[in-house]
Amino acid sequence: MDRFQHPVISRRTFFAALTAILVPIAVACTSLIARAQDDPLPSWNDGVAKKAIVEFVEATTKEGGATFVPAEQRVATFDQDGTLWVEHPMYSQVIYCLDRVPDLVKAKPELKDVEPFKTVLTGDREAIAKLPMHELEKLLAATLTGMTTDEFNAEAAKWTAAAKDPRWKRPYTELTYQPMQEVLRYLRANGYKTYIVTGGGQDFVRVYSEATYGIPPEQVVGTAGSTTYSYGEDGKPILTKEPKLLLNDNNAGKPEGIHLMIGRRPVAAFGNSTGDREMLEYTMAGDGARLAMLLLHDDAEREYAYGPAQGLPDTKVGAFPQELYDEAMKDGWIVISMKKDWKRIFDFE
Amino acid sequence: MDRFQHPVISRRTFFAALTAILVPIAVACTSLIARAQDDPLPSWNDGVAKKAIVEFVEATTKEGGATFVPAEQRVATFDQDGTLWVEHPMYSQVIYCLDRVPDLVKAKPELKDVEPFKTVLTGDREAIAKLPMHELEKLLAATLTGMTTDEFNAEAAKWTAAAKDPRWKRPYTELTYQPMQEVLRYLRANGYKTYIVTGGGQDFVRVYSEATYGIPPEQVVGTAGSTTYSYGEDGKPILTKEPKLLLNDNNAGKPEGIHLMIGRRPVAAFGNSTGDREMLEYTMAGDGARLAMLLLHDDAEREYAYGPAQGLPDTKVGAFPQELYDEAMKDGWIVISMKKDWKRIFDFE
Repeated sequence: MDRFQHPVISRRTFFAALTAILVPIAVACTSLIARAQDDPLPSWNDGVAKKAIVEFVEATTKEGGATFVPAEQRVATFDQDGTLWVEHPMYSQVIYCLDRVPDLVKAKPELKDVEPFKTVLTGDREAIAKLPMHELEKLLAATLTGMTTDEFNAEAAKWTAAAKDPRWKRPYTELTYQPMQEVLRYLRANGYKTYIVTGGGQDFVRVYSEATYGIPPEQVVGTAGSTTYSYGEDGKPILTKEPKLLLNDNNAGKPEGIHLMIGRRPVAAFGNSTGDREMLEYTMAGDGARLAMLLLHDDAEREYAYGPAQGLPDTKVGAFPQELYDEAMKDGWIVISMKKDWKRIFDFE
Repeated sequence: MDRFQHPVISRRTFFAALTAILVPIAVACTSLIARAQDDPLPSWNDGVAKKAIVEFVEATTKEGGATFVPAEQRVATFDQDGTLWVEHPMYSQVIYCLDRVPDLVKAKPELKDVEPFKTVLTGDREAIAKLPMHELEKLLAATLTGMTTDEFNAEAAKWTAAAKDPRWKRPYTELTYQPMQEVLRYLRANGYKTYIVTGGGQDFVRVYSEATYGIPPEQVVGTAGSTTYSYGEDGKPILTKEPKLLLNDNNAGKPEGIHLMIGRRPVAAFGNSTGDREMLEYTMAGDGARLAMLLLHDDAEREYAYGPAQGLPDTKVGAFPQELYDEAMKDGWIVISMKKDWKRIFDFE
């Protein structure tokens, strides 16, 4: 007799029963194996930071616990520049924009005597660093907008594959922090959806986020401009990137962007600079177990040292002021010391 | 006498014979049951529409096939009003806004003599329907903005739980189309991420999308306004909904919103009106197997009948003009006839 024709046990009941028996066994086995296997954070030294991450994950995933967070609410957000990868001496995307200028001038020769393109073409980094904000905005508009999304994606992918950081002589996408990659994987293995919430361009970061961090484009929230839908010469739909800002995903823009793009308050958030402050505040204002972490770049030897918190050198790129450090201490956010908490910085070391 | 002691038919022979007879019967039964149970779209009549859905799913998920789509690229987008649930005689969200007016006037009595609130308070649906667009915009701004996101979510959830459609006398969230619920589940069971891409308010739809469609808030793209981050009286961060439009998620706004919020071109898209046209065009312009479907409301008896395509009555709510029907026919989009393609409309039938 077919068991599914059993008068009492329907096919559905049978499978439900089987699932009820097998799933807990599978979960128990997986958890035993996981425990026996290595530490999920092998690149972290034992200390307050590592302990906080592990305790947070355990507190929020232990079924029946007071601070349990249902799987669908497990949202963790990560700033990118300076939190997941190197941001000094300059954000990679700014280097992309500078690198685009020669091609841009080739296409529009009239630009070669116009600022900021004239200065950028000299290659004089000091002069470039002194360009006023309104000239820099012209540079961003000229290199990041005015083309179709497909054209932009192709250009950015080509650059990302070829460009190299001058200090490590490696693609920028290899300059991600191994300890943070471990945190991303550890959270995902525990049912967390990991998001990038970056002041960088949303379209730019989406080009490499999946391959670099295992974070798909739909989980990248960033500074975003509008696009315009129209039809190309072949009649096919195209989206053109416009120089009109929709979301400046820095400071207050981070929680605003999280609401717009995710619609849930994160349970954990990671940053490294003043631009991440509001995201961490917003995260911590929710109920239950929460985790807010800030990475302090205090390792001039293995990476860079800048603050100006804790007497570290001041910087315009990814500043971590003492005021932010004090807020962290007061509010129970964890400051990660790159020097003390990280055994190694990069995967290739 | 025990039949197994029969001198000619041994016990072994008896069972062999029994097995030879029973096993094929059992197999046939199981396979019949499986076929009946495994139909992923039981509320659909056999026909072009059902066949197109099944063939699309098979074509895009068969490993090694020419039209295989990797799991991470399986994005399917659904309009909501008129595609996933009833939109006639009026969009649910507009009814929400109208229903909010008495409380609004109670809080701000000076509004009771001001348009459009004065007309809305009369309850005269005909007069309300005649309100000019700029008065309706005032109504939307007053009922959908000016409060924190938490306050809005609480109000909208309360209304959603209590409000009932006057024709079916059921909560609006029960007026979802059972055949479309089956498509959502069928696609998800085949590795698709299902998104709502609605002209309705993103924040409004996110309130019930998970419970109603199994679609989490982060997979709802809709018309969205900006929010402002600040601190409440208790010092806790709040997000306030502002009357400033960021994305009008209709017509060209749909592909623009998809790019902004998802960053991938859908492989399948479902709509029912002229506001979905650009989303379907954008979807179909990608390479490989694609599916674009439009639901035609041609069933006055079980739901509503409106077009004006195919000689159906004209409407201001979810119009499906003949021009759109012709584009569908020309470009290989599938038109679903509610009357012919759907065995039943609602789960409660």
